Amino acid sequence: MSLLNPTSIAVIGASNDEKKVGHLILRNLLTQGYKGSVFPVNPKGGDILGHTTYKTVTEIPESVDLAIIVTPAQTVCALAQECGEKGIPSLVVISAGFRESGGNDLELELQRIVERYGMNLVGPNSLGLMRPSIGMNASFGSHLPPAGTVALLSQSGALGQAFTDRAKSIGLKISLFVSMGNKTTMDECDFLELCEQDNETKVIGLYLENIRDGRRFLALARRINRTKPVIILKAGTTERGRKAASSHTGALAGSDAAVQAICGQSGIRRARSAEEFLDILRTLSLQPPLLSPSIAIVTNAGGPGVLATDAVEKEGLTMASLTPKNEEKLKSLLPATASVRNPLDVLGDALEDRFDLALQISAEDENVDGALVIVTPQVMTPTEEIAKTIIDVKRRHPLFPILTTFMGKEGVRDAINDLHQHGIPNFSCPEIAVRMLSFLKTQPAAPEENEEVPFNAKRAEKARQILTESGPGLLDEKRTGELFALYALPLPRGRVARTAKEAITIAKDIGFPVVAKISSSDVVHKTDVGGVRVDLQTEKEVSQAFDAIMESVAAKAPKARRDGILIQQFLPPGNEFIVGTLRDPGVGALVMAGLGGVYTELFADASFRLAPVSMEVAYPMLQSLRSFRILMGMRGRPPLDIAALAELICITSILAVECPAIAEIDLNPVLITEKGLTILDAKVIVK
Amino acid sequence: MSLLNPTSIAVIGASNDEKKVGHLILRNLLTQGYKGSVFPVNPKGGDILGHTTYKTVTEIPESVDLAIIVTPAQTVCALAQECGEKGIPSLVVISAGFRESGGNDLELELQRIVERYGMNLVGPNSLGLMRPSIGMNASFGSHLPPAGTVALLSQSGALGQAFTDRAKSIGLKISLFVSMGNKTTMDECDFLELCEQDNETKVIGLYLENIRDGRRFLALARRINRTKPVIILKAGTTERGRKAASSHTGALAGSDAAVQAICGQSGIRRARSAEEFLDILRTLSLQPPLLSPSIAIVTNAGGPGVLATDAVEKEGLTMASLTPKNEEKLKSLLPATASVRNPLDVLGDALEDRFDLALQISAEDENVDGALVIVTPQVMTPTEEIAKTIIDVKRRHPLFPILTTFMGKEGVRDAINDLHQHGIPNFSCPEIAVRMLSFLKTQPAAPEENEEVPFNAKRAEKARQILTESGPGLLDEKRTGELFALYALPLPRGRVARTAKEAITIAKDIGFPVVAKISSSDVVHKTDVGGVRVDLQTEKEVSQAFDAIMESVAAKAPKARRDGILIQQFLPPGNEFIVGTLRDPGVGALVMAGLGGVYTELFADASFRLAPVSMEVAYPMLQSLRSFRILMGMRGRPPLDIAALAELICITSILAVECPAIAEIDLNPVLITEKGLTILDAKVIVK
Repeated sequence: MSLLNPTSIAVIGASNDEKKVGHLILRNLLTQGYKGSVFPVNPKGGDILGHTTYKTVTEIPESVDLAIIVTPAQTVCALAQECGEKGIPSLVVISAGFRESGGNDLELELQRIVERYGMNLVGPNSLGLMRPSIGMNASFGSHLPPAGTVALLSQSGALGQAFTDRAKSIGLKISLFVSMGNKTTMDECDFLELCEQDNETKVIGLYLENIRDGRRFLALARRINRTKPVIILKAGTTERGRKAASSHTGALAGSDAAVQAICGQSGIRRARSAEEFLDILRTLSLQPPLLSPSIAIVTNAGGPGVLATDAVEKEGLTMASLTPKNEEKLKSLLPATASVRNPLDVLGDALEDRFDLALQISAEDENVDGALVIVTPQVMTPTEEIAKTIIDVKRRHPLFPILTTFMGKEGVRDAINDLHQHGIPNFSCPEIAVRMLSFLKTQPAAPEENEEVPFNAKRAEKARQILTESGPGLLDEKRTGELFALYALPLPRGRVARTAKEAITIAKDIGFPVVAKISSSDVVHKTDVGGVRVDLQTEKEVSQAFDAIMESVAAKAPKARRDGILIQQFLPPGNEFIVGTLRDPGVGALVMAGLGGVYTELFADASFRLAPVSMEVAYPMLQSLRSFRILMGMRGRPPLDIAALAELICITSILAVECPAIAEIDLNPVLITEKGLTILDAKVIVK
Repeated sequence: MSLLNPTSIAVIGASNDEKKVGHLILRNLLTQGYKGSVFPVNPKGGDILGHTTYKTVTEIPESVDLAIIVTPAQTVCALAQECGEKGIPSLVVISAGFRESGGNDLELELQRIVERYGMNLVGPNSLGLMRPSIGMNASFGSHLPPAGTVALLSQSGALGQAFTDRAKSIGLKISLFVSMGNKTTMDECDFLELCEQDNETKVIGLYLENIRDGRRFLALARRINRTKPVIILKAGTTERGRKAASSHTGALAGSDAAVQAICGQSGIRRARSAEEFLDILRTLSLQPPLLSPSIAIVTNAGGPGVLATDAVEKEGLTMASLTPKNEEKLKSLLPATASVRNPLDVLGDALEDRFDLALQISAEDENVDGALVIVTPQVMTPTEEIAKTIIDVKRRHPLFPILTTFMGKEGVRDAINDLHQHGIPNFSCPEIAVRMLSFLKTQPAAPEENEEVPFNAKRAEKARQILTESGPGLLDEKRTGELFALYALPLPRGRVARTAKEAITIAKDIGFPVVAKISSSDVVHKTDVGGVRVDLQTEKEVSQAFDAIMESVAAKAPKARRDGILIQQFLPPGNEFIVGTLRDPGVGALVMAGLGGVYTELFADASFRLAPVSMEVAYPMLQSLRSFRILMGMRGRPPLDIAALAELICITSILAVECPAIAEIDLNPVLITEKGLTILDAKVIVK
């Protein structure tokens, strides 16, 4: 493709001034191994770096695959137009001064020109593009990183440059680096598609500050991640200065729910820090998958071996037990005080032969599927020879994942460089190395969403009427009841009483015991204002509760309108979950499920997905909760009605999609038993 | 002291063979700046490295402060004896071949000799000792790390060596390195005391695999940590192959509860990985405390600024708002597109002057108490000049903590080295740097335990009788009741019924509703075998429950003896907590408190302390729980009876101490209301 593998490049804004970006980019293209034609363009003409300079692209006598524009923002559109006329298929616009600093009109114009000519556009406000395999450094970063299989797509040019600057020293090998800039036409989805088709790319790393089109991104990420792992580093996860959320769902969501949903639903992985992002990328690009969690640790020191063993359990891996035959073999060949039980301690005076033995046997052992080799530089430790041995074993066992932790600095520098050159990633401490091994575990593929989620237009219209009648704010009890009846959402039986006497009548009607709750569209958290009384067994209790609630709400929320008291059947306490929906400005409706009641806030055990969802998505969504064990029936209790909860998630998600007027739904708590569930409290917030 | 600042050192086992440790250590002492006298000792005599070699220490004409023994294990005791006779006050025994490889008798003999002469002994099986400030490398590590204020005490010589090898490159400066070896006489407590007295040491880092005397360690750590922060890296936290625990307390404890208790009780901090250990040490030793969590971020790139902002919230820090005056000042002096709202973005083309301005103003601003400076190497970024600027600002504001993240490698190497030389720690990514800033937060001092916890010998004797009658295993209901009555532990009213008829009588006696539970010393988890029925309202329900339980237990646990059915008053559901005790082989009785019911296992929200505890310890123990918010009264609910729960923790901890025969106590759930609490289920396991 012309963008990734151009045979000729024009640098528009090339300059003789060594401090200018237009000079740096030209020099990078001329001196770092690029074999294609490079044409400097500058209205002044003349010679730059020994190359004839053209006054315009149209003067260039040959065809051009890629134009890099480095001129002031005001000149970019005219130049892009010229490129279009010359039939240049791809543009990288380095120039800043567009939307990021108020130049919205200029950016729109650029977009129109690019679309008119059907050109690819990277940027504007991009740092450029690197393609190490063909020596193409079409950026103002000073060095090309080593060539390899990782595509690095970055929404921050500076961060991307820091990453590529770092690449060589950590053994990260790059197929493609793109600074996406303002993403005017080509955004993360377009680059993902490009990487999917690119044969050089095997692993994709994305640094993102926003996702333009969440639904397209999800679909692409899910598909591509099956063959090329996608790792994201997402900035902007916190919600500084965000207003207090009106629902639990909103409170749990933060600004991060959409990303969480996309990762959970597509199977792509998310790094916890910039450092971890690079670590995951080099691990996944250089080592084969770990077929089982069973790993061996080979070390010349007890201490780090124990630290690694601790980490193995924490990261969900297991310490392999070697076959008795191999254990015997090791015992006969290693010194008596060596440990032949995993972690395999070859002792402080070990030369490369003992590492060779232990690692070789581990690689051949049927119980071992991967290894971490830990080397501390002791008196006579031949760290470079040990590195060579590991490289040799790896060459003989290419499908056996091996990571290393050569600890220290001076004593291990050359060994680490050698390992990195041969595609074995080294990590500074055992805990990080073990965590990276866990990323090599083969993962279940993200669920296929074959089942179409139906949209019921007739029902949607009825719902719209209910919501329109109500107007914005909290939907009242009555309309909530109507809406939920439309979607067959199970609310407990009950009605609103205006007087204590009416309350008794209703209670007798639906049967004791009952619960009494304030009915008011002004009260969001009923318990906060003393608005709930439970397990009322007698007429007297109902009557007393009615008065007590009215009094309490009047005192604690004097401005709240009191519509009456809702009398409902009282259900014995059970396991409480929460189901909710909200809208993300980027991706639209999200559905959430989690542990309910007070624990919702306390442990934030919740899972998000893009709405609507089918049962195929709702089940794994529940499985991802820590509290899924409660649903499965902990400690001898029978399993709860998981199917009913999954179905509730689906219906609620459809409700959110069919009713765009709904901002948030909060079903909390949802009481779930062995057979069925009931929504004990529901809040619907209309936009 | 003779050990840390010797004026003369004998190397016993010095050798001319360059591959021998006895040669390496001598060479290290002669060539790395040590100014005292060094005497090689070897029965062969002659000259080593140009120094006269003595055949024995007694031949040395001068007095000797420190002897390093590097000879085969079998010869060590005789040599130590000679050292004792010569009056040498301190020994470091490098030789291996003692307890770590079966030489227990040899080690005991060495201990006797050392104690006879009142000598200090480091080792045996030690890698040695380093004291950079006097150029003393009495170890076989090849280099001395830079001199500074961090004492590094390591139970693993190899790990210690890897750390000191790394020190220079990460700016870690060392006052003392000790490889503790087998800790035959001097253990972590002795070295802690040594560090407390050592004027050079300001921060103490301990790598430990086991703690010899947990109670002494706790007392020392608590005291010392107030003036010199203590950081531990503890290996062996997981419990591979551990048997299924019989109580919840045991299950939650793992093998890690003692360390958790010591950290919680002493205020010392624990590193999550070897890398973090070094990071915390260099941060705390080089930078002053952060007086408030309010920090500023200065950056030349938006992306890493956002990543840092995300981390600030995660690590419990806050983004400072500069005073309006300073914001104005920045606005007038920085380019228009720079961000003068924290994070302060000085833009990609910033030279050192903009960093100077932003950092200087932050340091002077009354709302800002610390800063992170992020630098990415962009086109013309003068990274070295920026480093110098930061060093200058720091010089002018020594009490203002500054950390840096210069990202990349080639482009920032020299800048980072300069920062490290000047005591400003650099971290590879913003997330780690922000986490390290959080470690600089001033901490509340660990609670003083002034209050003596009483030991009631008379009560202890009565308890002993009850437990002796019972014998080992699960204590039955009756004796549990007696024991708990002795300690005034609140169990619900109830008695054991042998027949359904008797059950009805008891129920009528204590009043409906009641709960029925299987009474059997063979059944640990009653609900697992269908052994519990709750909220029984009528005689008929009681009678039916009696039969149902008997049937279910017979079916599910056919071998369990069925002593009868316990009929107790039924209490409405409320907030459930857990209190328990267990015994750690190292530190003895531990007491635990946490969230109860099914959530105990699910979220492992539990806190451990060494028993017995007073109220002064029980309160902060509860405060450290995530579920403390439940106790405080979440979402408009009144606070629960925290005092009663704290008291229960104290009494249970005293019970465990007064009754050494008790292995574990498990009070779960403990039902806690606004006024008081009840122990709904109790298990006492006798050794």
